[in-house]
Amino acid sequence: MKGLNDLKNKKYIFTSKSINRIYNEKFSNPYVLEDGEIIKNFDNVKRIYSYLIENNVNRKDTIYGVGGGTVTDLIGFIGTTFKRGIKFEFYPTTLLAQVDAAIGGKNAIDYEGIKNIIGTFNIPDNVIIDPLTVISQKDENYREGIIEAFKVAIIDGNISLFLDNIEKLKKRNLGTIIDIIKYSVRVKLNIVSKDPFDDNLRRLLNLGHTLGHAFESFTGTSHGLSVGWGIKKEIELFGKNIDLKSKKLIIEFLENIIPEEILNKDVDMDKLKKYIVQDKKINSNNKIDIPIIEKIGKVDLKSFDSKDVVSLFT
Amino acid sequence: MKGLNDLKNKKYIFTSKSINRIYNEKFSNPYVLEDGEIIKNFDNVKRIYSYLIENNVNRKDTIYGVGGGTVTDLIGFIGTTFKRGIKFEFYPTTLLAQVDAAIGGKNAIDYEGIKNIIGTFNIPDNVIIDPLTVISQKDENYREGIIEAFKVAIIDGNISLFLDNIEKLKKRNLGTIIDIIKYSVRVKLNIVSKDPFDDNLRRLLNLGHTLGHAFESFTGTSHGLSVGWGIKKEIELFGKNIDLKSKKLIIEFLENIIPEEILNKDVDMDKLKKYIVQDKKINSNNKIDIPIIEKIGKVDLKSFDSKDVVSLFT
Repeated sequence: MKGLNDLKNKKYIFTSKSINRIYNEKFSNPYVLEDGEIIKNFDNVKRIYSYLIENNVNRKDTIYGVGGGTVTDLIGFIGTTFKRGIKFEFYPTTLLAQVDAAIGGKNAIDYEGIKNIIGTFNIPDNVIIDPLTVISQKDENYREGIIEAFKVAIIDGNISLFLDNIEKLKKRNLGTIIDIIKYSVRVKLNIVSKDPFDDNLRRLLNLGHTLGHAFESFTGTSHGLSVGWGIKKEIELFGKNIDLKSKKLIIEFLENIIPEEILNKDVDMDKLKKYIVQDKKINSNNKIDIPIIEKIGKVDLKSFDSKDVVSLFT
Repeated sequence: MKGLNDLKNKKYIFTSKSINRIYNEKFSNPYVLEDGEIIKNFDNVKRIYSYLIENNVNRKDTIYGVGGGTVTDLIGFIGTTFKRGIKFEFYPTTLLAQVDAAIGGKNAIDYEGIKNIIGTFNIPDNVIIDPLTVISQKDENYREGIIEAFKVAIIDGNISLFLDNIEKLKKRNLGTIIDIIKYSVRVKLNIVSKDPFDDNLRRLLNLGHTLGHAFESFTGTSHGLSVGWGIKKEIELFGKNIDLKSKKLIIEFLENIIPEEILNKDVDMDKLKKYIVQDKKINSNNKIDIPIIEKIGKVDLKSFDSKDVVSLFT
């Protein structure tokens, strides 16, 4: 079985403080990053380039990103751009990264406060998922991962995997976690392989993200929970044709996983607007494609005028 | 006929001071960069990202790199990484960029004094070559382009295109220039299409570059002329089995194009060493593949221990 133990004796391990605290004995001489989104900036990128230069890292060498989505996003960007591409592998250690961030070949850093605005599409040489790492996650971060996996199930259809196992999920039953990881990765890779560069089908994965990203930037709520908020809010605003049974099942599951004070958070919609305007997916005609749920297993992209979306808030 | 005139009324033109001085009336509101390699740095990259953010540039927008290889290298990197890739087109205005730098999908910036150490492989949406721009080039820069085109001919075989037209070439006969551009682009694209990521065949294009790059970094001589110096030096050091007629024709042509004080420049080989050690093409086993000329039309990669290469200088 592949897992974090493979990393013993590997050079060029990049990980976060909190992951290093738990697994330090598995890493020899890791490069330890801070925790959180804050690492995805240019100063860090330059520091790591300098470190790779100092260590004469070459095109045939491999660097390892071990941590949550912030680590894999950053190391994917470094691995793609240093010497026009060296080898890189991911060991995602959060459920969110295992089911989403580390899968599908998107990497990025942030700039001028805009998340993921600089990056590339490039697939790592390997993604090794060690589900045991999920057990030690903080509750909130674990729930983030469930939401992103559930999002995939809304698109693909198999939400019974979630609804029928909700208590096992909450207790972090390892078998259930593995089932959910396998399912989400398979569905996501299936979508990504048909549209690697985010031109059409892949945008379905943006479900809940148009409003969710804005909510995340504005309130500082964690990504996965913000997406859950976004899924609910998008249903309320755009879901006038949604199948009512689907709506009920989705909202109930979200209420079960996301703390009430987040899911029903009142935000100043007028202030939220400006974060929507910065969305990468708005095109030059000021149109934005938003995935709209018709029913579970049937999500379609609908094109909106971004001004119309914004005006919904006023 | 496509050419610089197409740029009239285009937004997001990035060009260099010297090109803007000549062609300003063809550009509306261009973003004007300094001249030379100095523009390929992170501060500039960040300034341009900020400019694109300010102007709400989106994935369906196109940015235009109009200038020599430094401009196309920089804009290729920006176009690839901003919002994980927007559209970008090149209008190379130097013979060197037309036959080499703007062709083949390599982009890059420099870091810690190491040329092209950060970059990606990514093909522009369009490369428009306007051969008239070559007429206004400085003599030295024009000759750089001839050398890179000649390098391609050594690999491919058709050097008579150069030898038979040497006087026309020197007089910048437009027909001859067009013939040489067409030939070089065709041969380069043929090689690149077989090996886009520089794993094997494409490395033949590195002919003269192992020593040439080191010479360029150390002496500050322009890229194309440094490559000419490198071709000659590599023949002297590694060419014990070269066909003698080929050697004579190559050296004579180089002597005809490159000023004597550059081609025969005495450099402190001991100091040159440290620039070779930083070569991107050295792999983790400290091997370096160097293209070795057997005869015109027959160049092969030979693997050397980088220590052996370095020891040749001492």
